[in-house]
Amino acid sequence: MSLIVHKYGGTSMGSTERIMNVARRVAKWHAAGHQMVVVPSAMAGETNRLIALAKEIQPQPDPRELDMIAATGEQVSVGLLAMALKTIGVDAVSYAGWQVAVRTDEAYTKARIVSIDDAKVRADLAAGRVVIVTGFQGVDPAGNITTLGRGGSDTSAVAVAAALSAVECLIYTDVDGVYTTDPRIVPEARRLSKITFEEMLEMASLGSKVLQSRSVEFAGKYKVKTRVLSSLTPPDIPVAEEAASGTLITFEEEQMEQAVISGIAFNRDEAKITINNVPDRPGIAYQILGPVAEANVDVDMIIQNAGSSGMTDFSFTTHRNEYDKALAVLNARVKDQVKAGTITGDPKIAKVSVVGIGMKSHVGVASLMFRTLSEEGINIQMISTSEIKISVVIDDKYLELAVRALHKAFGLDVVAAA
Amino acid sequence: MSLIVHKYGGTSMGSTERIMNVARRVAKWHAAGHQMVVVPSAMAGETNRLIALAKEIQPQPDPRELDMIAATGEQVSVGLLAMALKTIGVDAVSYAGWQVAVRTDEAYTKARIVSIDDAKVRADLAAGRVVIVTGFQGVDPAGNITTLGRGGSDTSAVAVAAALSAVECLIYTDVDGVYTTDPRIVPEARRLSKITFEEMLEMASLGSKVLQSRSVEFAGKYKVKTRVLSSLTPPDIPVAEEAASGTLITFEEEQMEQAVISGIAFNRDEAKITINNVPDRPGIAYQILGPVAEANVDVDMIIQNAGSSGMTDFSFTTHRNEYDKALAVLNARVKDQVKAGTITGDPKIAKVSVVGIGMKSHVGVASLMFRTLSEEGINIQMISTSEIKISVVIDDKYLELAVRALHKAFGLDVVAAA
Repeated sequence: MSLIVHKYGGTSMGSTERIMNVARRVAKWHAAGHQMVVVPSAMAGETNRLIALAKEIQPQPDPRELDMIAATGEQVSVGLLAMALKTIGVDAVSYAGWQVAVRTDEAYTKARIVSIDDAKVRADLAAGRVVIVTGFQGVDPAGNITTLGRGGSDTSAVAVAAALSAVECLIYTDVDGVYTTDPRIVPEARRLSKITFEEMLEMASLGSKVLQSRSVEFAGKYKVKTRVLSSLTPPDIPVAEEAASGTLITFEEEQMEQAVISGIAFNRDEAKITINNVPDRPGIAYQILGPVAEANVDVDMIIQNAGSSGMTDFSFTTHRNEYDKALAVLNARVKDQVKAGTITGDPKIAKVSVVGIGMKSHVGVASLMFRTLSEEGINIQMISTSEIKISVVIDDKYLELAVRALHKAFGLDVVAAA
Repeated sequence: MSLIVHKYGGTSMGSTERIMNVARRVAKWHAAGHQMVVVPSAMAGETNRLIALAKEIQPQPDPRELDMIAATGEQVSVGLLAMALKTIGVDAVSYAGWQVAVRTDEAYTKARIVSIDDAKVRADLAAGRVVIVTGFQGVDPAGNITTLGRGGSDTSAVAVAAALSAVECLIYTDVDGVYTTDPRIVPEARRLSKITFEEMLEMASLGSKVLQSRSVEFAGKYKVKTRVLSSLTPPDIPVAEEAASGTLITFEEEQMEQAVISGIAFNRDEAKITINNVPDRPGIAYQILGPVAEANVDVDMIIQNAGSSGMTDFSFTTHRNEYDKALAVLNARVKDQVKAGTITGDPKIAKVSVVGIGMKSHVGVASLMFRTLSEEGINIQMISTSEIKISVVIDDKYLELAVRALHKAFGLDVVAAA
């Protein structure tokens, strides 16, 4: 008898009929002898409805009150799923984050999980009950409700799996696994049966959107075996078949032979901003990014390239929705203070990345990437690299072309030997 | 600086626009120097939506899970109202029942408040914040969310006012106070500027429906001055004017001269059932009502009138929706067991009551009531009395006539001297 965590997204919870299907799937695993903990998201559209309601009243909603409101979507879901299980004869109990308790820091709307008490959950599991815990939320040290930010239910599920030392955390989604790239852009894209968590981290944060990146970090940190699989299969397919489907996020040491590149990730939600002609002196990066961070603007790529002139250009990318806010902060609190030249920006960019754990031990990945883009006449605006990925920023309009060309160039179109 | 509690119903909270009006009203009282605690209901329709959702999955919803779901309606309301206050420059903070904490017993869907911790609320008030607490809900000793049942937000507001020793609890509703009877039936009906809590209790439980009766009990038990007033006045009328409007529920000792009768209450939701020719022996009432109670049928009036024949007729009234169920139980589990003659019933009855604290010290109320009905040719089917009310059951079709005649006969048409 092993402990399994299931996570279901808003689409799976989208109607009472679908919730009944989730219950049937969970009941099947329970009947197969597993201890089951389930983390469902809010019903599709509910979180958006609640946030829209809040914004009608306060266009920049107070973060504490927004969390108070947004957390209710998951609370409804857990209650409904517990009822659904009871109607098919499976004893179940639901908990809101504060009841477990899922303890977080105080960062409203993007809190981080600090700890999870497991006593209550273990007692219920021992009594044969399926335990259903709200995703997306927790409680801070002062007893305020916090939410983890969009996609936070993935993180909740992995954190619960870690706290309970679950054998596996199954994340049910509307895709059947992680692909070498988006099949809507490259029809030859293949599903990966395994991916390392480091690769997954790069894929997720770069916009593959299968899993929230923080959940992957959690999976890596606590070595939670996490599987992404389809919620669209019939709920009554055999457990063994379901358990082998999707993509398993593993750890490098478990890997056998490894392809150089696992996939091509991309993201067109970003905008870039450049502060031109900044004096190249110590502390300048902090002077620029400090006020941006204080305004709660998240920054992704950061590039500074100092020449010999004593001046430098400082660029970063941020979410396109935060572009205006970031520009305003820079103009009000940074430009004159750092004696910058001009501040320029472009919201119409895309980021394309090649990701692969195999990159560590292979040379030539960067040059193949740059050559491929060059052959397609695509100009590279920014470059950023890490151990297992190379990202470039290009003009938004070339995105599909770049992804297809890279997918082919790195041999991802061909099915690799298992 | 005095502490005031406001309670707003679902209609007042029915849209973001209306919530802004509630905020303006609260802000006005705050600006007048009062410490403010506000207890809002869920947005109109929201609790019904949530319960319908639950019933789609489980027609007889699990009570614990139903409370988990239903409690979210108020949680959204408090967050939205806190935001609304902030947008007009008033600092505010919202709390769910468990955060305060509002402690209840374990009776899901109809829990009773046991205690309220006031430390958190007092600290916020001292810091100048408006405190917004969810109505309708609390937390049981094991940390489960409970709800108080329909109309429970009134009770929450009065309980919060009691816990904080508030100077007054203002219940904003869609009527502008308590009337001598329903103005839709008697155009001459007058608003009472004061009513004792005992009278209010009889008026509320008899169908005046202005306040949930449990909230009136609470007001009486803890001597909370409670005012029922209109939420439909412009939010910016002077505080002094608003503070003098509506109907104040007071305590007998405070009353000066007292009219004999305060109002005429009525109820046409009931049905009567008579078990005819029952042997008149000890235990018979329990033998009849035991099975009815076990079937969860609520009973209102109970009348037994034993003659000298050794036989008696036993009658009671119940909600019209439970009429068929009650008949079925009596036929299956009572009729033969108690050797009754026939069981008869009538779902087309109405109950009319005269209510007044003055009745205690005045004779002749009953005779005036019976004479008035007799003069109108209305037959009285059942009579039941308490310290401060006399109720009769009559044919449904005479209801309006009876109420109008009694309202006139008891001098309620005439405005009494203040």
